[in-house]
Amino acid sequence: MPTAGRHCMIELWGCPARAIDDPQTVREAMLAAIAASKSTLLSECAHRFAPQGVTIVGLLAESHISIHTWPEHGYVAADVFTCGEHGEPEAACLELARVLGATRHELRTIERGHPGGLAHAVAERSG
Amino acid sequence: MPTAGRHCMIELWGCPARAIDDPQTVREAMLAAIAASKSTLLSECAHRFAPQGVTIVGLLAESHISIHTWPEHGYVAADVFTCGEHGEPEAACLELARVLGATRHELRTIERGHPGGLAHAVAERSG
Repeated sequence: MPTAGRHCMIELWGCPARAIDDPQTVREAMLAAIAASKSTLLSECAHRFAPQGVTIVGLLAESHISIHTWPEHGYVAADVFTCGEHGEPEAACLELARVLGATRHELRTIERGHPGGLAHAVAERSG
Repeated sequence: MPTAGRHCMIELWGCPARAIDDPQTVREAMLAAIAASKSTLLSECAHRFAPQGVTIVGLLAESHISIHTWPEHGYVAADVFTCGEHGEPEAACLELARVLGATRHELRTIERGHPGGLAHAVAERSG
């Protein structure tokens, strides 16, 4: 089969706790990331944990986006998977880093749908 | 910070097209996987694409699960992320392989929340 798509994982550190503990801020970051990747949101689920932390997952016409926050550590784990050739999941991840105010990030992209593909990054970036 | 959790990606091949094009079958596979990983489903979003293909994403108390199917290729891309020490995301992935009738799979686990962690598998398995 052709490549199913690109799956990016990003680690964000140094995010302001107040921002990433606010469901509305995290949702706005998700929407900005989806716009940056030229993807389409079909539906979403969100949850605010007690005493802190937010998860939001978005079902995309092109696959999915997830954002999980640990305000107590200024840390966010996110992933963006876009099927086909036209999505820009790396752009989505970097937009998350920008909007959520990360001072440091690590990004890794893998191609899904290829035998052996999980083990090889097609893009790696940190900043 | 301590490890945020383990994030598993699994590729499934050889899945019967009829099974993986049926939203109910895919949802039941998700529920079985969540049970296998001892996780808790908080909410979910699902979509059936035209002419074929299903996406379901589940928001877990422990992070998320996603399943994307390509019936025309007998292929499924899934991921399971469980935060903390007690989730068993590998068990969830292997349960998906079993329930969806994959003839071949590849699984890779990474630890989230560690600098440099995206580049190193903590578990890799195929079968």
